[in-house]
Amino acid sequence: MTSPGDPCHEPRACDGALARAFGFLGKRWNGVILGTLTSGPAGFSELRRAVNGISDSVLSERLTELAKAGVVQRSVHEGPPVAVVYQLTPAGHGLLPAMNELTTWARDNLPAVAEL
Amino acid sequence: MTSPGDPCHEPRACDGALARAFGFLGKRWNGVILGTLTSGPAGFSELRRAVNGISDSVLSERLTELAKAGVVQRSVHEGPPVAVVYQLTPAGHGLLPAMNELTTWARDNLPAVAEL
Repeated sequence: MTSPGDPCHEPRACDGALARAFGFLGKRWNGVILGTLTSGPAGFSELRRAVNGISDSVLSERLTELAKAGVVQRSVHEGPPVAVVYQLTPAGHGLLPAMNELTTWARDNLPAVAEL
Repeated sequence: MTSPGDPCHEPRACDGALARAFGFLGKRWNGVILGTLTSGPAGFSELRRAVNGISDSVLSERLTELAKAGVVQRSVHEGPPVAVVYQLTPAGHGLLPAMNELTTWARDNLPAVAEL
């Protein structure tokens, strides 16, 4: 489980899978994009508006990465007009329990004005 | 719940508390430090060895931030020799259900070799 790129190593270490989860979800925007998609599929423009501050090129890059990781699926709805929507895959939906736990914890422990 | 620094805004948005959780835990090293402390208190040197690749100054800075956020407590054990240990507070322990869910999800969905 330990590799040169793994932030944990023996003897005392955090779980390797947990470290990967933080590396993946902690990458800027990834968590917020996935959090936005928990309420249902969205088009590119809708996502860009929801993820305040992201640029078109970065959103496009992140969606490609999330699709490659198997958590987001891009679907083309034949038109007219043609529509492209992004939605969580079953693996992406598998994050819901963790996201719900994180949301509950943050409501109790991270004030909205926290600057860390 | 929405502020200029909040990465989510209406009408379609991810939960503000979830966005704060990702902002906090996604900051480089924070999640791995907390994950390491889930198995019990640790001294500075032990943490530095466990969090592979972190420098003394960054670890010190992160521990100060985590203490300020109320999730980690620094305790001095009177000696001799004097020992300083870091441990999760009750708020920090409150993250365990979320971290367990994330670990389970990552084992199933993020291969150890993933480069994202």
